[in-house]
Amino acid sequence: MKKNRPQVVVLGAGFGGLAFCQSFSCHDADVTLVDRQNHHLFQPLLYQVATAGLSAPEIAQPIRSILRDKRNVTVLLRDVTGFDLARREVQFAGGALPYDYLVLALGGVTSYFGHPEWEQFAHGLKSLDDALRIRGQILLTFELAENSASETEKKRLMTIVVVGGGPTGVELAGAFAELATHVLKRDFRRIDPRQAHVILIEAGPRLLPQFSERLSAKAAAQLTKMGVDVRTGVSVKNIGEGFLELSDGTRLESANIIWAAGVAANPLTQKLGVALDRAGRVKVNPDLSLPEHPEIFAIGDLALVMDEHNKPVPGVSPAAMQMAHHVARIIHDDLHGLTGPKARPPFKYWDKGTMATIGRAAAVAQIGRLQLSGWLAWVSWLLIHLLFLIGFRNKAAVLLQWTYSYFTYKRGSRIITGADRNCSR
Amino acid sequence: MKKNRPQVVVLGAGFGGLAFCQSFSCHDADVTLVDRQNHHLFQPLLYQVATAGLSAPEIAQPIRSILRDKRNVTVLLRDVTGFDLARREVQFAGGALPYDYLVLALGGVTSYFGHPEWEQFAHGLKSLDDALRIRGQILLTFELAENSASETEKKRLMTIVVVGGGPTGVELAGAFAELATHVLKRDFRRIDPRQAHVILIEAGPRLLPQFSERLSAKAAAQLTKMGVDVRTGVSVKNIGEGFLELSDGTRLESANIIWAAGVAANPLTQKLGVALDRAGRVKVNPDLSLPEHPEIFAIGDLALVMDEHNKPVPGVSPAAMQMAHHVARIIHDDLHGLTGPKARPPFKYWDKGTMATIGRAAAVAQIGRLQLSGWLAWVSWLLIHLLFLIGFRNKAAVLLQWTYSYFTYKRGSRIITGADRNCSR
Repeated sequence: MKKNRPQVVVLGAGFGGLAFCQSFSCHDADVTLVDRQNHHLFQPLLYQVATAGLSAPEIAQPIRSILRDKRNVTVLLRDVTGFDLARREVQFAGGALPYDYLVLALGGVTSYFGHPEWEQFAHGLKSLDDALRIRGQILLTFELAENSASETEKKRLMTIVVVGGGPTGVELAGAFAELATHVLKRDFRRIDPRQAHVILIEAGPRLLPQFSERLSAKAAAQLTKMGVDVRTGVSVKNIGEGFLELSDGTRLESANIIWAAGVAANPLTQKLGVALDRAGRVKVNPDLSLPEHPEIFAIGDLALVMDEHNKPVPGVSPAAMQMAHHVARIIHDDLHGLTGPKARPPFKYWDKGTMATIGRAAAVAQIGRLQLSGWLAWVSWLLIHLLFLIGFRNKAAVLLQWTYSYFTYKRGSRIITGADRNCSR
Repeated sequence: MKKNRPQVVVLGAGFGGLAFCQSFSCHDADVTLVDRQNHHLFQPLLYQVATAGLSAPEIAQPIRSILRDKRNVTVLLRDVTGFDLARREVQFAGGALPYDYLVLALGGVTSYFGHPEWEQFAHGLKSLDDALRIRGQILLTFELAENSASETEKKRLMTIVVVGGGPTGVELAGAFAELATHVLKRDFRRIDPRQAHVILIEAGPRLLPQFSERLSAKAAAQLTKMGVDVRTGVSVKNIGEGFLELSDGTRLESANIIWAAGVAANPLTQKLGVALDRAGRVKVNPDLSLPEHPEIFAIGDLALVMDEHNKPVPGVSPAAMQMAHHVARIIHDDLHGLTGPKARPPFKYWDKGTMATIGRAAAVAQIGRLQLSGWLAWVSWLLIHLLFLIGFRNKAAVLLQWTYSYFTYKRGSRIITGADRNCSR
């Protein structure tokens, strides 16, 4: 590494880290992008891999491949273990990486609200491995139900519980209901997959709290019509191997419990020695830099920053990308001596709207004062997600896949892989 | 299960087992198809998953989905553990399945020629999990080479050794050479993937012994032109963690050793108590039934049967499918009292030719006396494989993928998944 050039280190190749590398235009600096995975993941479609709609490579792209023409960007596959802020170094097993500027874009992890022991019984959905595990497990339990002689066991195997009524939970519950009622319906001989019981649990009074009450109600109605058992206002008291206990005293027996209830910042933030909020997010300055560290920035799900209404900017990909562009501009200006740390402009969030898909031709979207639901919202969702999927190949493959699924009700990725598949269970 | 109808049990949903279920036309019998996996695998393209050209679901299809309209076929996901030939039962953990006719289509496994301890150091390629493991490992070693400061270590990480010069070995070596020289070449900053060293080792005097000498030489020349280091007439003496020792005294240091040298019949054949050949294949009667068991048949890679030249029928998918059709006809005729076990016709193999692909626009094909190589052989290979890929969706996705790869030299499935990925190694 040439030490005479300024070194910018970016941690995390999610939407934020990648957008930074793509928009950072200073040719006099070296950028090193570090990630634990070799691929960038299109998180908004991860639920489609978990529900066998898309294959893993369709929503993931090698980071190096995306950035191959950015000659001043080096990509490294590394597990970051800590920081030495005084020496300006990022640490990992067997080495350290010096920086002049550090951009933290590490994203979030699944949070079990102080119950880490629930993780083994209720899988979260943050990585491709998570999605492949959920896909394998759901498909396997239908296979086991076909093999089972006991009605109680069949019922337990064919019950799917999704905890959390945010966009991910709603999308998963809708996709599982479609998988059972349409995709699998004619494939089994001894069970009827349409009798699968999909339950969506939300502790708050309504689904999708970030949408208007009218759209929340629409979403609940659309899910109910698809056969999803929507239960709001009940929280989870306990989770064990194959069961849940709810706040209203109900006990649910289920071989498929999915946790979509909580997200926290990557726990590496705890090693920074700065003030964090309850979800582990860094309380950044208005310009997104860390208190007393104008050379360090936190962006995306990692950063706690307020919008113009003094509400926290949500952990969505457009926000992460906007923050990335903001930081890229600040570092560029810094390096060119255009502004000092005191004159840096504050970050301003531009809310482009929110959408969540529920199923085939069913979605909700809220863009400013515009509120859409049903078919129109679904088509908008489809087009916008396709537009933002990185790389021609993925777009074409996903479009083909979706068109095919729409007309045939089939899904192409119903494959169980992984050594932990154990069919004698 | 209605016991008054004849029960046909088929073990294995490869080309043989599936072709049997699709062609067995007796509506008065129940067929149960048992497999350890939930998917049928298009084995001839498995090397493309291992080399990041195709995604796993593109070459795999759920068995139940393929057979959903065969109402007399039940598909079961089970690990078969043994047989009780006297009671006519197939055994598995926790149960047994009675049969009137049994069709064994269990296929082959990787064989290490009496050195099972080599398996941990040199992965074979028979399942999707094998292919995903090889893909993850190759991509990871390039990442580690980019991170490494030692030239010796870089060289070891970027050396790929393929053992076995049959079609699978040739296809793998060619695809790895292309991956390094074309796909990855611009993605790294500290290493040049074009300096990867792909070595193909064959113990016999020439590659592809099932082809003519002329085509073997063509294949070797095409591989050499692509940068593959082809070594014939040397065998493997020893394999350990990251190294091989050859019969000519050479020691190769390599982080990527792939074993494509041997195939044996599924070891379940050993539990049948009948005569087997050295590769574990069942020495069947000319009608493919087992000696003294006219109700049991072995087909595909499991069966040792001679062709008209008194040479063993090769372990290729067309042979397995022809055997399946033969057995389906025999059981049909038996059930309708058309022929007794003594009057059954013998199986006749129709050799449709053999082909192997080497790389982009390079292949060899031998169809009767016709011998093709280069571009024409490659296009034939492409069309024939596409024609036989099961299911519209896979065909369209694979065609799209191939067209895209051909024109851009990119590969879409360069994704490392799996919990055993350890990037600090």
